[in-house]
This record gives sequence, C-alpha cells and structure tokens, in this order.
Amino acid sequence: MAEPDAPDRPAPPPETYEAIMQATYRAFCKHGYADLTTREIAEEFAKSRSLLHYHYDTKQELIVALLDYLLESHPAKAATDEIADPDERLELFIDRGLFGPQEAAFDFWDFHTALLELRLHAHRNDAYREQLDRTIGLITDLLAETIREGIEKGRFHDVDPEETAQFLYDAIDAARIRKITLGHDDAPRRTKHAIETFVLPTLRASDDDR
Amino acid sequence: MAEPDAPDRPAPPPETYEAIMQATYRAFCKHGYADLTTREIAEEFAKSRSLLHYHYDTKQELIVALLDYLLESHPAKAATDEIADPDERLELFIDRGLFGPQEAAFDFWDFHTALLELRLHAHRNDAYREQLDRTIGLITDLLAETIREGIEKGRFHDVDPEETAQFLYDAIDAARIRKITLGHDDAPRRTKHAIETFVLPTLRASDDDR
Repeated sequence: MAEPDAPDRPAPPPETYEAIMQATYRAFCKHGYADLTTREIAEEFAKSRSLLHYHYDTKQELIVALLDYLLESHPAKAATDEIADPDERLELFIDRGLFGPQEAAFDFWDFHTALLELRLHAHRNDAYREQLDRTIGLITDLLAETIREGIEKGRFHDVDPEETAQFLYDAIDAARIRKITLGHDDAPRRTKHAIETFVLPTLRASDDDR
Repeated sequence: MAEPDAPDRPAPPPETYEAIMQATYRAFCKHGYADLTTREIAEEFAKSRSLLHYHYDTKQELIVALLDYLLESHPAKAATDEIADPDERLELFIDRGLFGPQEAAFDFWDFHTALLELRLHAHRNDAYREQLDRTIGLITDLLAETIREGIEKGRFHDVDPEETAQFLYDAIDAARIRKITLGHDDAPRRTKHAIETFVLPTLRASDDDR
C-alpha cells in the first residue's frame, strides 16, 4: 500500500514524466481503476519498468500524479485562454464537458468510466478524495470565473457564480454517468437542451438589462 | 454466478418475502455492493439460511428483487397519492430526493452509497443495468407525470415533461454523488437553491399566463 506521504524520490525529467503519464493514462483508460496494477502501467511504458518504479512506487502515486497532469491540459483551461467572450466560453465548457473534445477522442468515455470507478474508491481513500476534490474544484473555479466575468460585463444576471458553476458541472456530470452506467447515449444531447431551456435563459441578461 | 434466466423457484409467501427483502436491504446498506455475499444477507435474516436459498439462489437475484421491492414503497409513489397539487408535489419530490425521507432515515446515505457501487457494476452487467434503468425510468416517469399535470392545469409552462424530469433527477443525483464521494455535505442544500434559481422559476407560469 502507498505511504500517506510520498517518499523523497527524484522528480522525473520532463520527457520521462510525459512518457510515464501517457502510459498511466492509456492503462487507466484500458483497464479501469479497480483492475489496474503498476504492471499494466509498465506495459504501456516503452522504457524500463525499473525507471517507472524509480520515480513512482505505487498505483496510487501514479493516479494522483495523472490527475495533476491531466488538469494542466484540461479543456476548461485552454478555453479560458482561447475565448474572450464569457458567454461563448461557457457554451464551449458545456459542449466539451458533454461531448468531449472536438478532435476524435476515442478515449473520452473510457477515461470517464475509469474516473467514475476511481471516484467510488475516493469514498474510502483520503488521497484520492482530496485529489479529486481539488481537481473538480479547479474546473468549477474556472467555470465560476467565466460566470463572474459575464456578470461584471453585464452579459449575465447577478447569480451566485460558484453555485451556478457547480450546478452546470453537476448536470454535465450526471449526463455522463447515465451514459456510462445505463447506456443512455442521448443523455448528453438532452442535457444540453435542458441547460438551454432552464439555465442559460435565466443566466443571460436581456439587452434591456444592460 | 447467476443464470441469465432465474430458475423456476416458488415465489416466497408475503411474510417471508418481506423478511428476505428487509434482510437484503440491511446487508446491502451495511456492506455495500462489491463486498456483499449471500452469507451476509443470510446473517440479517432471522429464519434459516436454507429458506433464503430455497427462494433465491444468488446475490444478483436478491439485489434485483430488492430494487423492485423498494420501488413499491418509493417516496415518489407515495407523494403522487398524498399530494394533489402538482407544484407542491414537485417540491416534495425534490426535497425527498436531496435530503431523504422526513422521518430519521439513518440508512439513506448508506443505501445511496451501496447503490452507486451497484450502478458502476451495471456498466458490465445486463441484469443490473436493465433493472436500474427500469427503476430510474419509473421514478422519472412519476416526476414527468407531475410536470405534465402542472402544464395541463396551467401551473407550469409548456416544457418537455420527460426532459425536465430527467434534468431534475440528474441534478438531485449529482448532488448525492458529490456528498457521497467527495464529502460535500452542503451539496444537497446548494443544489436545492440552484433548482429554485434556475428550474422552478422557468417552469412556473406566472399569474399573467394563466
């Protein structure tokens, strides 16, 4: 089992770090969380198994590091840099959350299936719970920041940005969970429509309000 | 492992059925899904283990039967009989879904934790997926029926009843999942507020519309 505090091992150089994280990501998508071992991760890693273990000792350390790694390139972060208009940016957040990135992402649903498995384990594992809480918190913070910006620019009504961000995140999350667990393939599309019916019109200030 | 089709075993008499389902419920709440065996269920059952196995052969049969049993006494069903006003009934649906029944239900969160575990297994188990789909479908049907009734009575705007019901169910579900997996104890309260901000005002017809 993993130590609560990671031992002092040298941080991998950037190229090795990238290769280890990509291997962890592939193994996580392929095997899910519960059935995953460091052996499967090592199998996806082109370099030596001992190099992997030189930097990471346990599956838990690798998964916690993977969540940090993925957060760095999260679409919500990219959208903040790419799109100046908060309303357009919010729509992109919603679309990417429900349908995945625009480029063919064959692994989007495999990843979310494995992530759901991990989240269930988080119930009894402090390291995972804290990391997932931090990760989801950073994504909803970006969403809340966009909503706050929209309010300041007079584009959105004066709602609670954090609560609204969390509500949108939850709606997207629940649609993904229904698609994964119950096979409701139309869940993302119908949730998009419900968000357009209930959330966006309430959020958007009409021209009269500006 | 369970047979795909249950063998022909005699249906238990009502009293035995009730006792077996109560034992299954207690064991499911106590042990969760993955760690549960028929041994644990038998331990909660006051009568003999052989009587249990006379009627149910596997854990899967017991869990599928439990979901049917619980649906019979689901609060959404009771609310339909109790409350004539569709708007009041909708509020009760939302409150019971987020906060549990009014009477002290110490097992509400244990049950939903075990259910989430089961839902994850449904991903790869047809019998569970079909039963969970049916169960959630019947609950959202009751919600949709209430919304449809509200539209017919001029209390609600002319929204899509099924889509709205599913959106509300998802919002409630996501709040429960965050409370269970991430320890967000304020999730149900904040989701209630978000529903009151975004969904209910859009849904409710103002007096002018009637």
